[in-house]
Amino acid sequence: MTEVKTVTASMIIIGDEILSGRTKDANLTHLSLWLNRMGVQMREVRVIPDVGQVIQDTVNDLRHGYDYVFTTGGIGPTHDDITAENVAKAFGVPFVQSAESLALLKKHYGIEKISDARLRMTMIPEGASLIKNPVSTAPGFQMENVFVMAGIPVVMQSMLLDLEQRIFGGDKMLSRAIHVFEGESQFAKMLVEVEQEFPHVSLGSYPFFRNKKFGASFVFRSQVAAELDAAVDMLKLKISASGREWFDGEAAL
Amino acid sequence: MTEVKTVTASMIIIGDEILSGRTKDANLTHLSLWLNRMGVQMREVRVIPDVGQVIQDTVNDLRHGYDYVFTTGGIGPTHDDITAENVAKAFGVPFVQSAESLALLKKHYGIEKISDARLRMTMIPEGASLIKNPVSTAPGFQMENVFVMAGIPVVMQSMLLDLEQRIFGGDKMLSRAIHVFEGESQFAKMLVEVEQEFPHVSLGSYPFFRNKKFGASFVFRSQVAAELDAAVDMLKLKISASGREWFDGEAAL
Repeated sequence: MTEVKTVTASMIIIGDEILSGRTKDANLTHLSLWLNRMGVQMREVRVIPDVGQVIQDTVNDLRHGYDYVFTTGGIGPTHDDITAENVAKAFGVPFVQSAESLALLKKHYGIEKISDARLRMTMIPEGASLIKNPVSTAPGFQMENVFVMAGIPVVMQSMLLDLEQRIFGGDKMLSRAIHVFEGESQFAKMLVEVEQEFPHVSLGSYPFFRNKKFGASFVFRSQVAAELDAAVDMLKLKISASGREWFDGEAAL
Repeated sequence: MTEVKTVTASMIIIGDEILSGRTKDANLTHLSLWLNRMGVQMREVRVIPDVGQVIQDTVNDLRHGYDYVFTTGGIGPTHDDITAENVAKAFGVPFVQSAESLALLKKHYGIEKISDARLRMTMIPEGASLIKNPVSTAPGFQMENVFVMAGIPVVMQSMLLDLEQRIFGGDKMLSRAIHVFEGESQFAKMLVEVEQEFPHVSLGSYPFFRNKKFGASFVFRSQVAAELDAAVDMLKLKISASGREWFDGEAAL
């Protein structure tokens, strides 16, 4: 019997800007791909507004359901940056000044220039540890299995560097894809047959519409490399045997 | 007293492809902007995997909390297209063949060419009405306040044309923005003062990092046009009075 170790994550994107459509989120894709390299699978993402109670409820919903939770957005110095205080409330711990964060800020700006707004960024839930980054003087923080990060993509990405030693993954989810340039319904039966053959492979069919024609990418995912390859080979054989054509790799697109 | 009518929506993006980071969602932004033009505010988005129970639970969570719920993804002809049957389960109604959908399909393909896979796409929850579209022969459907749409952006977008008469909005959320090219913390106090002055205006500060410098967009949102304009004017005055500069419009970015 093949045993696989699965580690899961969820993400909370905090920001009216994303919900309103004014700003496109750029963090989900980056975080998912990074987590996958760490052996962690993203299982759920929620985009929520800058509303305290919603932040608290969402953090508490997700932190018990997944191994890790990542939040982005709402940790700056302005009145609408309410993520940190609401994560403290979600955990039921005091919201306190981090001496380490204050020291970082003093070093960066010189003591006399620290405004109330910047001091706000040194507040974290009691018991949290900082997530430092080379881009911004405002650190994120880790509270148990919840990682609170910036929303600006370049800052969020630089925070991940500080997390590499704190995330413990399982067996990586491997994936391969082949593509066809006909409607996916022609292949529906084969896909079922292949998926049924391999218990550790999930097989997704993702239609696309390009140059006024439908096509589909068949994406195989598995934590077991041998099954993954065998499943791809089986589908290729079935497609060829039906007189149709498949194409390998992203280049085919 | 100013009264405003607020109508809300949430969105469920269904697909392992989005969660894995392989595909970037392109529907959230489009739907949010479209809804805003209809007078509806997007309040929550969830990205979930192709897992039946998760789809049911999420639909039931959201359909009671928002005026409208929109789903994208998982309504094609293959084995992983399980959205429709799970929406039926969420509502506790039978999953039945739509005579209207079958007629559309027969008309398009000619009766003898309809495969089992394609027939699968004619199944909808009992009591649902079709969402037709000119791009694909596979319709979406509306079940009470839940709108089930395709994941392919061009198809999803074309389905919205069929929804314009079915969505009843409230007062539109209007927005304006000004920008600064200094760190947002310099402006934190002014933002609080302006927001406190106008009960129907929400003011967000969205930092950005460009050309190695921080800046920020201050975005005003309100359903009351006069308050919106007055709030923008007040912040401009405060910024100018402090000896700093603000910039108008997207062109400034």
